[in-house]
Amino acid sequence: MKQQRGRFITVEGGEGAGKSSNLAFIQSMLEAAGKPVLFTREPGGTPLGESIRELLLGHQHTGMAEETELLLMFAARAEHLQSKIVPALEAGTWVLCDRFTDASYAYQGAGRGIARERIAKLEDYVQGDLRPDLTLLLDLPVETGLERAGNRSAPDRFEKEAVGFFERVRRGYLQIAADEPERVRIIDASPALEQVQQQISTVLQDYLATDG
Amino acid sequence: MKQQRGRFITVEGGEGAGKSSNLAFIQSMLEAAGKPVLFTREPGGTPLGESIRELLLGHQHTGMAEETELLLMFAARAEHLQSKIVPALEAGTWVLCDRFTDASYAYQGAGRGIARERIAKLEDYVQGDLRPDLTLLLDLPVETGLERAGNRSAPDRFEKEAVGFFERVRRGYLQIAADEPERVRIIDASPALEQVQQQISTVLQDYLATDG
Repeated sequence: MKQQRGRFITVEGGEGAGKSSNLAFIQSMLEAAGKPVLFTREPGGTPLGESIRELLLGHQHTGMAEETELLLMFAARAEHLQSKIVPALEAGTWVLCDRFTDASYAYQGAGRGIARERIAKLEDYVQGDLRPDLTLLLDLPVETGLERAGNRSAPDRFEKEAVGFFERVRRGYLQIAADEPERVRIIDASPALEQVQQQISTVLQDYLATDG
Repeated sequence: MKQQRGRFITVEGGEGAGKSSNLAFIQSMLEAAGKPVLFTREPGGTPLGESIRELLLGHQHTGMAEETELLLMFAARAEHLQSKIVPALEAGTWVLCDRFTDASYAYQGAGRGIARERIAKLEDYVQGDLRPDLTLLLDLPVETGLERAGNRSAPDRFEKEAVGFFERVRRGYLQIAADEPERVRIIDASPALEQVQQQISTVLQDYLATDG
């Protein structure tokens, strides 16, 4: 019998949406359902990707051109796909990824104003026809998210951007969810963690029942 | 009177072709002809580009996927163009660049086997219709070049590659020169420096007389 391909699940969300806690919850749910899970993250996920992530998030290169940022993201993504994500999927492992290309559309596209078509060209170039099977979008008001993120640690370069930027990012994410309702499920991340996890649980059980 | 756009001159060549000495010579010739010259290099040329160059040439990330290497090259190139090369050309400055996109075709394309069309897509994506006005290709037999390079310092990751790789790179460069004889002038870099500079001088004087 041919090995069944793993599923590619991504989690997206703005600052302070609670991605870390919820990623751990999702992983444990999938494992409880008997799925082998590889957890990874974007940008990064490989030693080279982590170096690129440092370039992107650090304070050293604040004047970076927008197109450069985008190309670096996709360079990390190409490495991540070829060295980690694709081999895992082919081996039947489910891949759970903290952010993927939707984040490029939201942050570099909607947030910074790079044309959607420019991003789509690199997406096609790097990914061919590979897309996530399921995406959970943790959505909450920008002010709430920034307050939560601010309570956690020193703000990085992205977090220092104006609130208007994060409003555009949020609208960008919600637009993707509106365009692809089958793939992208919106999770209301503003209530208490337990209630967020209840929503995630419902979505995942539904997904596992029909597709898993 | 509208400011005349500067010219974009690139110098290409394999290992040990004497690029450094000859770049200094070219810069002095252009300056002697009254041209304001900005000297720069690929990959690098900007603080971010130098960081990317370290990722590319270092020994830390030896398993890098070929597509990743290519995307990193073009990320550095996008930054270099937007922050340095294009503003200089628009201000009327001549830009002299140590390697440019021809090196991607030669090293990643001919050398590593990435399809020409894949590189062309990124070239169009990053550069639009910007191409060098003049390219000097310092050509010499691979064995001669590697001997010269070996005498200089510890080999970096590229220099450790097999001789067959450099043979493919050389043929890649010569193919570009055959395809674009107007833009790319072949300089025989195997004789003594003085004779190499005599050839360069002839090409540059010809270029300055007709185009400069």
